[in-house]
Amino acid sequence: MTQFNRRHLLGLEGVSADEISHILDTADNLKEINQRPIKKVPTLRGRLVINFFYEASTRTRTSFELAAKRLSADTFSLTASGSSMTKGETLIDTAKNLEAMAPDLIVMRHSSAGAPHLLARHIKPSIINAGDGAHEHPTQALLDMMTIRQKLGRLDGLKVSIIGDIAHSRVARSNIIGLQTMGSAVRVFGPRTLLPPQVESLGVEVANDMRQAVEDADVVMMLRVQRERLEDVLFPSLREYAQRFGLAARHLQKAKPGVLVMHPGPINRGVEMSPEVADGPYSVILEQVANGVAVRMALLYLLLNPETR
Amino acid sequence: MTQFNRRHLLGLEGVSADEISHILDTADNLKEINQRPIKKVPTLRGRLVINFFYEASTRTRTSFELAAKRLSADTFSLTASGSSMTKGETLIDTAKNLEAMAPDLIVMRHSSAGAPHLLARHIKPSIINAGDGAHEHPTQALLDMMTIRQKLGRLDGLKVSIIGDIAHSRVARSNIIGLQTMGSAVRVFGPRTLLPPQVESLGVEVANDMRQAVEDADVVMMLRVQRERLEDVLFPSLREYAQRFGLAARHLQKAKPGVLVMHPGPINRGVEMSPEVADGPYSVILEQVANGVAVRMALLYLLLNPETR
Amino acid sequence: MTQFNRRHLLGLEGVSADEISHILDTADNLKEINQRPIKKVPTLRGRLVINFFYEASTRTRTSFELAAKRLSADTFSLTASGSSMTKGETLIDTAKNLEAMAPDLIVMRHSSAGAPHLLARHIKPSIINAGDGAHEHPTQALLDMMTIRQKLGRLDGLKVSIIGDIAHSRVARSNIIGLQTMGSAVRVFGPRTLLPPQVESLGVEVANDMRQAVEDADVVMMLRVQRERLEDVLFPSLREYAQRFGLAARHLQKAKPGVLVMHPGPINRGVEMSPEVADGPYSVILEQVANGVAVRMALLYLLLNPETR
Repeated sequence: MTQFNRRHLLGLEGVSADEISHILDTADNLKEINQRPIKKVPTLRGRLVINFFYEASTRTRTSFELAAKRLSADTFSLTASGSSMTKGETLIDTAKNLEAMAPDLIVMRHSSAGAPHLLARHIKPSIINAGDGAHEHPTQALLDMMTIRQKLGRLDGLKVSIIGDIAHSRVARSNIIGLQTMGSAVRVFGPRTLLPPQVESLGVEVANDMRQAVEDADVVMMLRVQRERLEDVLFPSLREYAQRFGLAARHLQKAKPGVLVMHPGPINRGVEMSPEVADGPYSVILEQVANGVAVRMALLYLLLNPETR
Repeated sequence: MTQFNRRHLLGLEGVSADEISHILDTADNLKEINQRPIKKVPTLRGRLVINFFYEASTRTRTSFELAAKRLSADTFSLTASGSSMTKGETLIDTAKNLEAMAPDLIVMRHSSAGAPHLLARHIKPSIINAGDGAHEHPTQALLDMMTIRQKLGRLDGLKVSIIGDIAHSRVARSNIIGLQTMGSAVRVFGPRTLLPPQVESLGVEVANDMRQAVEDADVVMMLRVQRERLEDVLFPSLREYAQRFGLAARHLQKAKPGVLVMHPGPINRGVEMSPEVADGPYSVILEQVANGVAVRMALLYLLLNPETR
Repeated sequence: MTQFNRRHLLGLEGVSADEISHILDTADNLKEINQRPIKKVPTLRGRLVINFFYEASTRTRTSFELAAKRLSADTFSLTASGSSMTKGETLIDTAKNLEAMAPDLIVMRHSSAGAPHLLARHIKPSIINAGDGAHEHPTQALLDMMTIRQKLGRLDGLKVSIIGDIAHSRVARSNIIGLQTMGSAVRVFGPRTLLPPQVESLGVEVANDMRQAVEDADVVMMLRVQRERLEDVLFPSLREYAQRFGLAARHLQKAKPGVLVMHPGPINRGVEMSPEVADGPYSVILEQVANGVAVRMALLYLLLNPETR
């Protein structure tokens, strides 16, 4: 039996293909719980999971809360806004205060790259990175890979196109790392100002237009446009963005048959993709959300269950 | 045994007298749980109830959360303010995202009439309308009817006066529908600008002053003044409102002996009614709050319990 | 066996040494639960604890929520900000509405001294004061005393120095009362403008400088600087405050060997104390946080468990 010996999940950097497969296998098994009438098992009863979110994220936070509840863990969420937890206090002091309340695991989102790693060095509970700056968002990449594997039966030898604001996207970064680890090739496309400098050093191919980006792809993963960034005049307008970087049904004719269209949500309809594509036969966007709960259950289980450590 | 075959509770429009009686009977039975030292039964263990509130409402949301907890359901609340759930996303997209998390029931409040009906057409979980615009607020009317039936022993042949901002009140609308279904007569009174156009078409009597409004009434139901609306200069001032439309002890002398004074809360003391009336022998306002938990338990039970479907 | 017959904990004023010892003994016993893998006992299953916070406090609220969950009570929190609970409603009306939902215990924080006492006079559930204005914060003082007793083995015959904004500190007030009840002596020090008028009437000694404040102390308890108050020009600047009233390592040489350094958190590093002191061998600040959960578990247990009443 595969052993899973990690204490934290801080990113997909350095996580082996065997470990990723083991997480996804566990998630596949646990997913079934979410379809039962009684969607709850007592596995983590009496364990405490704290969601510690310095950046707002109802979607990810809710998914983690639900995962914890379905395993019968106790859970509560702290958000930095309006929290006296963080008044004038350093991050490490806040973390040590949380630690004093004896949580078993802390799920952390923070606007600074490396914040969860800092925590992991200073406190004892397990840490899951739920997004740190533009660095990593490993649980999103895992749920994306779970969805791809479910639909296409494998994670090796695929061509995955990631389209949008690559430079600022932790979703893109974690997916690039994870998919390459599993043996797939990644191609990126987006506005030139939103590609990271020396993007080729990531081992990805760079496309020049939507046609090239989508050609022969097994998976087309669209990234969310942060409207805030548009105001930085990095590109002229939402409408122009949609025309040059939005996914339309006609683009998909060049992709592999049975191509998957993915998006981490929430979608800006008519911007990243046309409504026709979002609701079309290739879209697996809602499967991604459902798999998000299963992947997070798997991680809580693997990091906390004494039998697996 | 009466069968309850609904999947949703979107409003009292079209709900039969038998169905209303069955909900209230169930609530009467469940109410007893709230008086036990251990206020909890395992009936809905492992079921997930999401409170999805686009409009703030601590009172109603808390009542639903408590109802869910007392039946051992898992529950969490999403509020639109500050929620990334709704960033640039359509209502249906947000709903489908929630659906992907496999809830059994969604309690929804929204400022637009018909929003819960839209959800019910697009997603599988049961929906309870917790207030949609100026349209319906069926659980409030049910808790009001539960309170009346408990105190007066019946819901037919009564005269119920509803006083205040009738035009904008979903509480008034759901009560008018429900009480008429049960065989009672409704009389309304309020500032002329706050009566709906063609109010008589609702089958209600319209009173001309407080004296007429309260005369012979079995129940006097006061509506909350939305201070925001006062600023629309629909009527001159809070003080003038209180004088012409506020309930004072002297008005109650014309009502039936044992008249009930009701209010959906929170009360503006000295506006909708004098403190003397609010705290007086006829007031059943706090019974309404207690019955609110019981009615919501009954609905969760009837809509979710497999034995009843 | 000692009996604990209180219904409420509104303050430490009037609470006997026996009662305080009994609470701390219970907390010592319950603390062990927080170190188990399964940090949960079924003692208060089906009981409802409402956290009713008119003033924001993630730290104290979280500690109470956790205490409730570890005893398997149901719990939810209402915060006044953004709460329709309190719209135009009197405090007593809000409290009676909460009471109608049949909670067993209400934990209350309010900016007005005496607010929890008002509630206790008007509604049936047990009340715990989680801080009322500048009046009392009894659970903080109890967790402080628990920490002192654990570390020094006793609570009588000690010299405890409390340093900072004594006048506005409910933490100081409750500690002065509790420590004196247990047989210890309290010395205070702080900016003259932040000492209460006639401070000696509290039975405390007043020091003139840090050296005198710390001399021979068994415990040095630093109070949090409310940055808001600094803007009232009560003293010139944070920097000057730190120089005259901040605790540095050199001050501790005059204290008793094994002196304890305490702080209710969150710390302003470099203001109330140097980082060297905060992280130093005498600091028991994180033990205070851990003991906070245990003390609150003890109070919920003692006030709610039928066997103990």
